[in-house]
Amino acid sequence: MTKRQDDAPADAVPSQLTTFHGAESGVWKITRVKTVSGAPLPAASHVLVSADATTQPHRVAWSLRGAASHVRYVERHEKEALDARPSPLGRPEASRAALIPISKSPAWWRLAQDERRKIFESSSGHISQSLPYLPDVARQLYHCRDLGEPFDFLTWFEFAPEHEARFDELLARLRRTEEWTFVKREIDIRLTRAR
Amino acid sequence: MTKRQDDAPADAVPSQLTTFHGAESGVWKITRVKTVSGAPLPAASHVLVSADATTQPHRVAWSLRGAASHVRYVERHEKEALDARPSPLGRPEASRAALIPISKSPAWWRLAQDERRKIFESSSGHISQSLPYLPDVARQLYHCRDLGEPFDFLTWFEFAPEHEARFDELLARLRRTEEWTFVKREIDIRLTRAR
Repeated sequence: MTKRQDDAPADAVPSQLTTFHGAESGVWKITRVKTVSGAPLPAASHVLVSADATTQPHRVAWSLRGAASHVRYVERHEKEALDARPSPLGRPEASRAALIPISKSPAWWRLAQDERRKIFESSSGHISQSLPYLPDVARQLYHCRDLGEPFDFLTWFEFAPEHEARFDELLARLRRTEEWTFVKREIDIRLTRAR
Repeated sequence: MTKRQDDAPADAVPSQLTTFHGAESGVWKITRVKTVSGAPLPAASHVLVSADATTQPHRVAWSLRGAASHVRYVERHEKEALDARPSPLGRPEASRAALIPISKSPAWWRLAQDERRKIFESSSGHISQSLPYLPDVARQLYHCRDLGEPFDFLTWFEFAPEHEARFDELLARLRRTEEWTFVKREIDIRLTRAR
């Protein structure tokens, strides 16, 4: 068999590190922090998002790193449904955001792939329940379990102020699922873009 | 629903970083290096395996990091078959080893989970073809794509000298599969434990 010549990064999924700093200044002002489960994070007033891991802002309360990576559970038909509702980050009207770092239990990580997929989607409808909220809620998942970070995932959402109630509705739905019984640490950090 | 109280790390899958240094000395002496595809690595005489990411040995030709992490494709029935053939690393008779860093193409990482699983197992039989080689060949996979490393995986194998031919047979089988058409860089480093 011949090797594929497919190194073109055109629409590749880059695995790139992003760091979220809880700091004294930054593009996003923290408006509310709710420790949903597990240990809290130290207090900070702003969140600074940096694609440069070497930049270390002054007076940082916490720094959390994650990699925007390839999909782990999404199947072809779901990928097509998601791609049909493009919801890019950085839209000017999306002046609200949520950073929700999450860790799951060792029991979750011991499961086989088909068991995790079954809980994630067949039982909990993580993708199917989230789809109706696109494109009002834009999101990006960052993986950090393999980086030795304190959380397994950093979940990031952006939306216009008028869509925050819908976002809360989505969160409430997800938190009632079987998948969420495996969540052992979750911190809900709400943000407003600083003008 | 109540939160699970399952933080016991007893048989948890820890996500821990391991670094492989190509160096001038180390527990494993390099006997042969074959660049199967893609760019070669600089020459080194030994491989030093370190669980401490802060240790930097002298005169290192290359350092590759990866995380021993949870399974990504293995399903429950396969996990049981694998668990039924325990093949631990570090057996005294396993004086030979292979370190095979691998990268897959952007086309692979763009695929949905079900598409990757189908190629990995239904088409290529990665797990079913490997099973008969356990426990003669012990193996550990380290993930490094999300770490910003030059490879996606570091694959590590240990076996007794009399099983090296069988290991070569397994490699030849895997390299003929559809999965391997997505491998764009692969370096086969053979090692003997230094006495």
